Amino acid sequence: MTLLVLPAPGAEAAAAGLAGHLQAPLGAVESRRFPDGESYLRLASEVRDADVVVVASLRDPDPQALGLWYLADTARELGARSVGLVAPYLPYMRQDRRFHPGEAITSRTFAEFISQRFDWLVTVDPHLHRIASLAEIYRVPVRAIASAPAIARWVGTQVNRPVIVGPDSESEQWARDVADRIGCPAIVLEKKRLGDRSVEISVPAAEAYADRTPVLIDDIISSARTMAVAVRQVRSAFGSAPVCVGVHAVFAPDALQVLQQAGAARIVTCNTLPHETNAIDVLEDVAAGVRALQEGARGA
Amino acid sequence: MTLLVLPAPGAEAAAAGLAGHLQAPLGAVESRRFPDGESYLRLASEVRDADVVVVASLRDPDPQALGLWYLADTARELGARSVGLVAPYLPYMRQDRRFHPGEAITSRTFAEFISQRFDWLVTVDPHLHRIASLAEIYRVPVRAIASAPAIARWVGTQVNRPVIVGPDSESEQWARDVADRIGCPAIVLEKKRLGDRSVEISVPAAEAYADRTPVLIDDIISSARTMAVAVRQVRSAFGSAPVCVGVHAVFAPDALQVLQQAGAARIVTCNTLPHETNAIDVLEDVAAGVRALQEGARGA
Repeated sequence: MTLLVLPAPGAEAAAAGLAGHLQAPLGAVESRRFPDGESYLRLASEVRDADVVVVASLRDPDPQALGLWYLADTARELGARSVGLVAPYLPYMRQDRRFHPGEAITSRTFAEFISQRFDWLVTVDPHLHRIASLAEIYRVPVRAIASAPAIARWVGTQVNRPVIVGPDSESEQWARDVADRIGCPAIVLEKKRLGDRSVEISVPAAEAYADRTPVLIDDIISSARTMAVAVRQVRSAFGSAPVCVGVHAVFAPDALQVLQQAGAARIVTCNTLPHETNAIDVLEDVAAGVRALQEGARGA
Repeated sequence: MTLLVLPAPGAEAAAAGLAGHLQAPLGAVESRRFPDGESYLRLASEVRDADVVVVASLRDPDPQALGLWYLADTARELGARSVGLVAPYLPYMRQDRRFHPGEAITSRTFAEFISQRFDWLVTVDPHLHRIASLAEIYRVPVRAIASAPAIARWVGTQVNRPVIVGPDSESEQWARDVADRIGCPAIVLEKKRLGDRSVEISVPAAEAYADRTPVLIDDIISSARTMAVAVRQVRSAFGSAPVCVGVHAVFAPDALQVLQQAGAARIVTCNTLPHETNAIDVLEDVAAGVRALQEGARGA
C-alpha cells in the first residue's frame, strides 16, 4: 500500500495531520483562480501507482465541488491506483427528502457527485436524520468515524470530575456514549412545554452533580443558539460555567461571541473543520478508518 | 414541443430574454444558502412532460456548478422530458491540455460534468484554442451560436460609417465576419517587433478610413489591457475615439475604468454575461439554436 495524502485547497492542516497519523507522504497541490473565477489546479507530487487520499474541508462546499473532480480526474489520469476522499465534515446531509413540492434533494445529488469520482469516502459523525446510513445514498464504500472516542479522551484528561450534558434529546446518544467511555455521569436537558408559546428547559438532577464540571456536547455548532440557551440553563442549575464541546465547528460569524456571552467556561471542537476552537484531534481515528478501507479494498 | 425556460440563480435576465424569443413560459426557481454554504433550490413551476431549458450565467462557475446538477436532477425526477443547458458564456475553455506536469485539464472534466446531466448545450462563441470543436469534449449535442450576426445588426444600425478593427491577429476572423455582414471595411492591428523588448502596434491604412468611425471588436473583455492598448493606437491613428465591442463581458473589477481612461467613445457588449455594458442582444440567435436542437432531438 503506497498511500499519498493530497490536500484540497483549504484542507492543508487536516491533510498534514492525517498524513502524520497514517505515516504517509503529504503531496502538494497548487491552486489559483483566474479572473473569471475558474480554478487552476496542479498536482505537484508524483501520484503514479499511489493510493491517493484527498482531504477536503467542506464547509462552504459549492465553490470547492468542481475542484474535487479536478483533483480526482487528474490523479487518475496520471496513474493513481485509487482515489479516496476524506471529508471529516460531510455537507448536504439536511435535505434528504422533498419536504415541499419542487425541492431539490441535494443529499442524493451530492452523494452521486462524490460517488462518481471517488473510490471510497471517510467522514466523521455525519448528521443523519431520515437516512439511516450513508450507504443508502453513496454508491462507494463509506466509513463514518465516531468522534465520541476522541471527545472522551479529551474530556477525560482535560476536565476535572466531568458530568456530560446533552442540550436536547437528539444529543442524548452522544452524551451517553462519551460519558460511558469516561465512566462519568450524563444528563440530558429536558424541554417542558408550559403553554402554546412558552418552553422551559430544565436540568434534571443537577443538584446531585453539584461538585462536577458540566460539559455540554453537541454535534454541529452553527448559529450556536441552542448551545447558548443550554449554557445559561446549566449555569443557573449548577452554579458553574460549562465547557462546550462541538464535533463540527461550522460557526456562523457571530456564533463564538454568542457562546462566550452566554457564559461558556471554554469552547472546544474537533478538527473536522478548521476553526480557532479546534482542540480535539479526531484524525487519528480517521486514519484508522482509511487504513481499514484500504485493507478491505486490497482483500477484495 | 412544450418548452419551459428555467433560470439558474443569477441568470434571471437572460432566462427572461430567451423565454421571450422562444415564446415559451418562464419558470421560477427559488434558491438560498444555508449558514454552512449549502444550496437550497426549489423548482416553483410544474416541469412534468416539459422540455426544460436551464439558462445559466457562468462567470464565476465554481459556486454555481452543483446548483446546475440540482436543477437538472430535480427537473428529471419531477417528470421533465428533457433538460438542456443554455450557457451563453461557456467557462473552462482555457485549460484544454496539460501545459505543465500535473495540471488538471479542467476543460475536459467540466465538459464531462455538464454532459452527465444535460441533454444538450447551447453557447455563444466559445473561446476555442487547441480544441477545434466542442464535440471533442462534450458528449451531448452542442450548438455554438455566432455573435457576429447580432454584432453586425447593432453596429450596422448604431454606428455611422463604421470600419471594424480587430485588436490582434486572433481577432481577425471576428472582425472580417462582422464587416462582411455590414458591408464595411475591416482592418487588423499589427504588432511590429522593434527589438528584444519593444513592440509597436501599427494601424495599417488608417488614413484611408479617416472619415469612418473605428469599431474595435474582441471576444472576451476580461482585464481589458489588450483592448486599452488598441484604443490608444486607434485614437492616435484615426484621430477619433473608437467604439469598443466585446462578446463576453467578463470584466475584471477595474476593466471598465481602464477602457474609459484609454479613451473609448463607447463600450458595448453582448448579453452573454450580465453587465452594465450589455447592449447587443444575442438571445434571439440563441433561441434559434435551441429550437433547432429541440427539433433535431424530436426528429431522431
